Amino acid sequence: MKKLIQEKTQFLNDMLDGLKYTNPNIDVIAETIVVRKHKKTSGVALVSGGGSGHEPAHAGYVAEGMLDAAVCGEVFTSPTPDKVLEAIKAVDNGDGVLLIVKNYAGDVMNFEMAQDMAAMEGIYVEMVVVRDDIAIDDVAKRRGVAGTVWVHKYAGYLADQGTHLKALKTKIEQFLEGVRSIGMAIIPPAVPTTGKYGFDIGEDEMEIGIGIHGERGLERTQIEPIAQIVQRLTTKLEQEVDSDALIVMINGMGGTPLSELNIVTKYVAQQLEKEGKVVKGWFVGDYMTSLDMQGFSLTFASYDDHVLAALNAPTTSRNFNS
Amino acid sequence: MKKLIQEKTQFLNDMLDGLKYTNPNIDVIAETIVVRKHKKTSGVALVSGGGSGHEPAHAGYVAEGMLDAAVCGEVFTSPTPDKVLEAIKAVDNGDGVLLIVKNYAGDVMNFEMAQDMAAMEGIYVEMVVVRDDIAIDDVAKRRGVAGTVWVHKYAGYLADQGTHLKALKTKIEQFLEGVRSIGMAIIPPAVPTTGKYGFDIGEDEMEIGIGIHGERGLERTQIEPIAQIVQRLTTKLEQEVDSDALIVMINGMGGTPLSELNIVTKYVAQQLEKEGKVVKGWFVGDYMTSLDMQGFSLTFASYDDHVLAALNAPTTSRNFNS
Repeated sequence: MKKLIQEKTQFLNDMLDGLKYTNPNIDVIAETIVVRKHKKTSGVALVSGGGSGHEPAHAGYVAEGMLDAAVCGEVFTSPTPDKVLEAIKAVDNGDGVLLIVKNYAGDVMNFEMAQDMAAMEGIYVEMVVVRDDIAIDDVAKRRGVAGTVWVHKYAGYLADQGTHLKALKTKIEQFLEGVRSIGMAIIPPAVPTTGKYGFDIGEDEMEIGIGIHGERGLERTQIEPIAQIVQRLTTKLEQEVDSDALIVMINGMGGTPLSELNIVTKYVAQQLEKEGKVVKGWFVGDYMTSLDMQGFSLTFASYDDHVLAALNAPTTSRNFNS
Repeated sequence: MKKLIQEKTQFLNDMLDGLKYTNPNIDVIAETIVVRKHKKTSGVALVSGGGSGHEPAHAGYVAEGMLDAAVCGEVFTSPTPDKVLEAIKAVDNGDGVLLIVKNYAGDVMNFEMAQDMAAMEGIYVEMVVVRDDIAIDDVAKRRGVAGTVWVHKYAGYLADQGTHLKALKTKIEQFLEGVRSIGMAIIPPAVPTTGKYGFDIGEDEMEIGIGIHGERGLERTQIEPIAQIVQRLTTKLEQEVDSDALIVMINGMGGTPLSELNIVTKYVAQQLEKEGKVVKGWFVGDYMTSLDMQGFSLTFASYDDHVLAALNAPTTSRNFNS
């Protein structure tokens, strides 16, 4: 396996060092926590994070209008509770902290422990758990994937509007009721730390329902023309997102060229047009990746004009393009 | 070979159709020419283009502050002179047109023919040929690669400032005297139209000096830690760019994950620091790709405060992040 790295044990630290050179608006504290250079003096502070390998998530979203801190674990590995606690303490300004967590057992456990520890120190912390991936039937076990990035943006907007923590959490949870994702891949991620590919797959096969950690998906089948793949995914999403007006994200998995994401976009647009649905906002690009996996995920949100305005509001993150 | 496409013959048209859905500021005319929705009423108009497969180049740079039109050929194939002529006629407002062309025989020939045809119709057209890739010794044969994207931006800024065509061309040529690039790859591009990989390469090899059309490079060797790769590339660039203050681009080749581009950034920064050089501006991302090739190119420009201000000036392109 070939990677553009120095040593696999330095993957995370080298990546954050590189990021510091090019982003003058961030600092890295305690080695693996990315924070804004200029701490917010009021308003709910937003902390997210998780394993690395999903770039630009989450460090690339530490910016005005989005996150206050990202706690970065090693590749596909949760950060520890003490790091999450340190991030909470670094960003809290007295208005409380919202933790935005993707639904993976390790992340949920470690962020919850940090929340409890912060509470003991008198910091008011709430948590939202994102579980937008419908590849898994059991809702409690559903993974958090690309929809999480919309949460960073929407919550950032609400925080800047002065929304209080409890109300902010409620709004995010209401938003998430209408957000669902599903992914597919044709080439698995090459994981630097293990030296292994996420899964083996035949030269003419695709995997539907993959996660973002090299997990296998729901179903493996022969690769199809993109119109058919899109129809498979939209059919699944429409079982859960019941709206004729949508906000749509087409998320590249890290190794997918932009040309192909644009081709996917055409077929998603045509499929939805055929069904009489209207897309009010498009988000196309690499938002939540899985190293160099080739594939994409499709995320639908029920349209809401307030939410779309928030998603389109300015941010200094160069990684959130709308 | 697996691709997220409908049919290989529709690659270009499907990609442009997809782009139209998500970019409200462009139109596609004559099937393969991307123009701004709102034509400029004064100022030099900028036309670039070439084969497709380099996304976001060039269609993604049709935007305020950058190009007026991109003439898109099929994958790795030059657009025809009649299409270039059509683009020239579509964007000319009487202040003349600058053609920005990468140095490939087919592109140069077809853009030159279009220039001649436009001249016969009374349109004032000038051309700059970018040949920033130092992998080839013979300067006349040097290819145009990632440095071309800086030209789009700098020229767009100059045009908006009201710079006349002749002076604009001169400034771009002066700028290009200090711009040099070199690329490397670890995984070749999978070319949809031929069904073939750009080149074969061993599981532990890398190719130094690759182009952006799946051409083999200067030298093939065992893959090395990134610090050594960076040292190879900077040494070559420094033979030609003699400045202690630089503007640096680290360009992903399409399939390279952002995490690895950030890691590359660290080692470029450290190498230059060690040599006592100062980086005044960083550009890190996918600017000029080669389908899903994994690798990167490094571009240096001699620092100039006027140029850097132009590169950092606003644009509505979501693909040019500084």
